[in-house]
Amino acid sequence: MKKVINDPTAVVDEMLNGLCFVHSDLVERVEGFEVITRKAPKTGKVALISGGGSGHEPSHAGFVGEGMLSAAVCGAVFTSPTPDQVLEAIKATDEGAGVFMVIKNYSGDIMNFEMAQEMAEMEGVEVASVVVDDDIAVEDSLYTQGRRGVAGTVLVHKILGHAAREGKSLSDIKELADKLVPNIHTIGVALSGATVPEVGKPGFVLADNEIEYGVGIHGEPGYRKERLESSAILAKELVGKLLDSFDAQSGDRFAILINGLGNTPLMEQYVFANDVAGLLADAGLEVAYKKLGNYMTAIDMAGLSLTLLKVEDEAWLEALNSPVTTAAW
Amino acid sequence: MKKVINDPTAVVDEMLNGLCFVHSDLVERVEGFEVITRKAPKTGKVALISGGGSGHEPSHAGFVGEGMLSAAVCGAVFTSPTPDQVLEAIKATDEGAGVFMVIKNYSGDIMNFEMAQEMAEMEGVEVASVVVDDDIAVEDSLYTQGRRGVAGTVLVHKILGHAAREGKSLSDIKELADKLVPNIHTIGVALSGATVPEVGKPGFVLADNEIEYGVGIHGEPGYRKERLESSAILAKELVGKLLDSFDAQSGDRFAILINGLGNTPLMEQYVFANDVAGLLADAGLEVAYKKLGNYMTAIDMAGLSLTLLKVEDEAWLEALNSPVTTAAW
Repeated sequence: MKKVINDPTAVVDEMLNGLCFVHSDLVERVEGFEVITRKAPKTGKVALISGGGSGHEPSHAGFVGEGMLSAAVCGAVFTSPTPDQVLEAIKATDEGAGVFMVIKNYSGDIMNFEMAQEMAEMEGVEVASVVVDDDIAVEDSLYTQGRRGVAGTVLVHKILGHAAREGKSLSDIKELADKLVPNIHTIGVALSGATVPEVGKPGFVLADNEIEYGVGIHGEPGYRKERLESSAILAKELVGKLLDSFDAQSGDRFAILINGLGNTPLMEQYVFANDVAGLLADAGLEVAYKKLGNYMTAIDMAGLSLTLLKVEDEAWLEALNSPVTTAAW
Repeated sequence: MKKVINDPTAVVDEMLNGLCFVHSDLVERVEGFEVITRKAPKTGKVALISGGGSGHEPSHAGFVGEGMLSAAVCGAVFTSPTPDQVLEAIKATDEGAGVFMVIKNYSGDIMNFEMAQEMAEMEGVEVASVVVDDDIAVEDSLYTQGRRGVAGTVLVHKILGHAAREGKSLSDIKELADKLVPNIHTIGVALSGATVPEVGKPGFVLADNEIEYGVGIHGEPGYRKERLESSAILAKELVGKLLDSFDAQSGDRFAILINGLGNTPLMEQYVFANDVAGLLADAGLEVAYKKLGNYMTAIDMAGLSLTLLKVEDEAWLEALNSPVTTAAW
């Protein structure tokens, strides 16, 4: 393992302190907790929080800021945050209008976020949530019943963050989230495994020219291994699976997110984007919004994911396009 | 070589098309050239252009947009753009007030940008330039007389981009650039080599736990190899060299840029930032501006660089903080 770290057990603590140093204009850390909150005057609006295991940087702390998240809860690497950490985020961000939690679909995350919700409600804070399960690669997985929550979660942060800033109520945000999430589908491909600092070696190993489709952002198994031939073939596989999952028809409108998993350079992500653009055009689809970069990573995994959001409401595009003040959007 | 590409000889062409697809709101490609220009109404101001070999993404095309570059010229991977490409960028962006070129200190870049300048001047376009040589690691290098131009170049783009937007004249921008560049020092460390697609294997190989200080962004040799011990030791080496280079005194004010070279996760960059913050505080220095992320990469090289900009003029901070509309700032 060759990493720019000190003590592997201190990585999250030191990372969060480094993050708060670099982005001291935007965020701060709740003392004694792995919780990053927005530095902003209270406005009495609904607070939006998210989080999960660390190792997905810039998710989720990079999206804390005006117009997106109110706080991020940062668990140990690839490990759900504990209920007391989530509770602290709820209490630190509630401004009286309630707290909405965006949870990725992992059993540990759901259990701990929901336990924190119960504790917060006993203290009189209103809490609601949505579980994001955008990864269409496989049903059920190492840590998940149903589909995993992956890069599409970032689009949920953006769209709900806009709604919260607009002053929407907790129940309105819940309604929006429930309508939005089923319209977000993601699928990925890995070129390498990821190395958790405390483990010291990759979670899985692929052969020299081998890739695996459908791998999860913690290295959960995918659905097929094959030889890496070209970006065009990857794009055809991922776009094909996504369009099937939507039963997409010519004229349908989509927002797209091409997400690097860590060790895949922008050079390759843009080459892939060019192939995706061609396939979507061939299918007669309209691409109404585009985003590309490392948003939901898996530490140092090489690979990428493609997310399609079916635009069922023009307001979603407005929300995606609205400016925010965050480290990483 | 395991890369998401198609034909290695088509990488730059396909990457630029992908980039123009993703960022179609911001930029467009000059047809038939590897030149990316800003989509914006002409305002009669000085145009700012930069560029160089590809492989440093998001540099330089990611910084084309309102408030930064007017155009980027994108050579083959790790190869200077040809004079005709640079000339095209000059002609495509001149709005009558002249064109200012930011050139990194590589012999090929200087020769080709200056040749383009001569050709443009013969066509009646006023052109001026600055050569950025911020890398203090070594004097002279594989492709450079003097010091190399590396990540600090991005700060030059930002500060000169602000001046151009403010309507400063070509000679004012030249004067600003000449004052600014000597106050920007950078030094880096590599944990691995980079693989140029057309070459197919890393430019150099380090042992399992070995690092090399002072490596250039094309893999040019650095000044010392040693065992990777910790982020704290890396930070001590890089901060020490930089403070010596400035003869820094307690109370001095700096802007800092922590730049990932490609395959070093944000997790590690933030851990390193935490160590840097401690050392700068210990030295009694004021950090007036901070930025972190992958800005000037070396394809898939693992490693990072640290840039310090000595703040000799408050206006430089205002320029760094002014909002821009680009893909990557």
